[in-house]
Amino acid sequence: MAGERRLITALSRIFGPPPPRVLCGIGDDTAILAVEPEQELLWTIDALIEGVHFDLRYTPLRSLGWKSLAVNLSDIAAMGGEPQYALLALGWPPTRDLDQALELAQGMQDAAEEYGVTVIGGDTVAAPAGLTLSLTVIGQVRPGLALRRDGAQVGDEIYVTGPLGLAAAGLEVLRGGVELPKDRQDTVTAAFLRPRPQIAAGRLLAGQRLATAAIDLSDGVASDLEQVCLRSGVGAVLTMASLPIPQPVQEVASCLGLDPQDLALKGGEDYQLLFTVNPGKRAVLHLAFARAGLPAPTGIGSIVAGAGIRLRGAKGEQEIAGTGFDHFPDGGLRGD
Amino acid sequence: MAGERRLITALSRIFGPPPPRVLCGIGDDTAILAVEPEQELLWTIDALIEGVHFDLRYTPLRSLGWKSLAVNLSDIAAMGGEPQYALLALGWPPTRDLDQALELAQGMQDAAEEYGVTVIGGDTVAAPAGLTLSLTVIGQVRPGLALRRDGAQVGDEIYVTGPLGLAAAGLEVLRGGVELPKDRQDTVTAAFLRPRPQIAAGRLLAGQRLATAAIDLSDGVASDLEQVCLRSGVGAVLTMASLPIPQPVQEVASCLGLDPQDLALKGGEDYQLLFTVNPGKRAVLHLAFARAGLPAPTGIGSIVAGAGIRLRGAKGEQEIAGTGFDHFPDGGLRGD
Repeated sequence: MAGERRLITALSRIFGPPPPRVLCGIGDDTAILAVEPEQELLWTIDALIEGVHFDLRYTPLRSLGWKSLAVNLSDIAAMGGEPQYALLALGWPPTRDLDQALELAQGMQDAAEEYGVTVIGGDTVAAPAGLTLSLTVIGQVRPGLALRRDGAQVGDEIYVTGPLGLAAAGLEVLRGGVELPKDRQDTVTAAFLRPRPQIAAGRLLAGQRLATAAIDLSDGVASDLEQVCLRSGVGAVLTMASLPIPQPVQEVASCLGLDPQDLALKGGEDYQLLFTVNPGKRAVLHLAFARAGLPAPTGIGSIVAGAGIRLRGAKGEQEIAGTGFDHFPDGGLRGD
Repeated sequence: MAGERRLITALSRIFGPPPPRVLCGIGDDTAILAVEPEQELLWTIDALIEGVHFDLRYTPLRSLGWKSLAVNLSDIAAMGGEPQYALLALGWPPTRDLDQALELAQGMQDAAEEYGVTVIGGDTVAAPAGLTLSLTVIGQVRPGLALRRDGAQVGDEIYVTGPLGLAAAGLEVLRGGVELPKDRQDTVTAAFLRPRPQIAAGRLLAGQRLATAAIDLSDGVASDLEQVCLRSGVGAVLTMASLPIPQPVQEVASCLGLDPQDLALKGGEDYQLLFTVNPGKRAVLHLAFARAGLPAPTGIGSIVAGAGIRLRGAKGEQEIAGTGFDHFPDGGLRGD
């Protein structure tokens, strides 16, 4: 057990001691948590697989560690919760130096410290066919305040917490298809490699009951807004001119001969929040974000009766739903 | 998203609707749980990777589903807890028929129903390099009653809840190295393919404060008892003659020219509980197990001062610790 045990010891050193309400962390069969009274528990798991979710040719391990925790925290943010603890199941290729696993862990710890989370345990196994990471995160929210996907109402305005398409532009730059001036290059690659979960915005929206529905932008606005629409039984209209598409995204799109709104709406991985708000709360919303020192959210459209998502531009309207990333595009099930 | 969404819909049909305290299961960014007051939360994650933890040449997918949940429930059993909910992160090879994913899910649901657990959500991703499964399970235990690894005291007796070596013998049979008469063949292969987490025994030990320490036998007695000894700062002496090694394990060992106690102590995957008990509680222990209708636990040795694990046999004593499965046997970390 020497190799595995040394790895676990090194990992626990990076992740630090568990906080007081974690009665038992690394080193037993399970973790033991003393749950705070009068809170609901938020609980999520995400798997990241080498060659599918990340490419180590352009993803430094420390960034991968950050991102793997950040995308889980983003799920908690999308519910309006406060993330607390994480467990890590690390599948590590035995041919890869174990020291590199510590770089990965350090990146995870960077994000954990930034967002007040503790990695309290997990499982380490050999994964000869490539690095795999599963993280499960627990958070909490006051009863009844969680931001679900199914509450959007006809007439609600649709907002996003920040710019769209930066991560998709960053991925294009990292893949080597495009070059930008250094500062803009850094902006887009950081958006892809080190996404920032919108925890403060989520907690504000939930705590002040500002949003009727929310989701985080992992697959892209087209696909993620579609989830909200399907769950809420509504449709949506987006206004092309209102989409917050920053200059570097325009530049990358122009280099690649793409429509910038394709990067913005279908690129995914921005990890901003998309949420819906009753129009009567517009002023309160902007005041609350300003008071909290958060960037003003951008209205990008409205919820309408019916189904589907239309994008309204200079040349009229087009359908855009159903075009996000599908892990099993051809995967029919028998008897469908 | 059609393929992925159809898969998720089919999975939710198999796993059934969430129980009332699960306020939100499959279909949102996270699950929402209403935690029961005055309970501590037990929380675990395990990753299973094709080619490392299982071989689909001799493991039916439905058995793999059962086992993947059962080994997580075994961690909750080893803490003396009641398992409640599971989240599944499924990495599925896109070349493999999605219908087979439903067989896997059905096996998981078989175990979930058997042990009163609900699979309430998760994540489905493509995994081209091979099937990967991560499961995270939550359970609960009354405050202060969890069975930890670090409480074994010098003089305590060491018990196991059931036979040793059956799973290791089953693995040899499945790999095709050995043949046994049908009934005994079925016994050992079922022990390997469909392990039974000892939840009732764990809850009894915790509820009546019978054990000073406990662990589940995943890596084998040698390695798992070593964990208890290391965490408790003690050593152990086992008595060879007292090891519960059933007839089929003897037969498989004899076919392979092995010592049967090697299968029993180092084979792993039996998922029985190993626990330590103050000798003054011996009678109470046996009475409690009998009253609960559980098989009598078997005493296999005692906790002693010092470190290490010795096996006492006809030919004297030998050291046996430190010989369990290591995922990273050669994995030195720089600066060790």
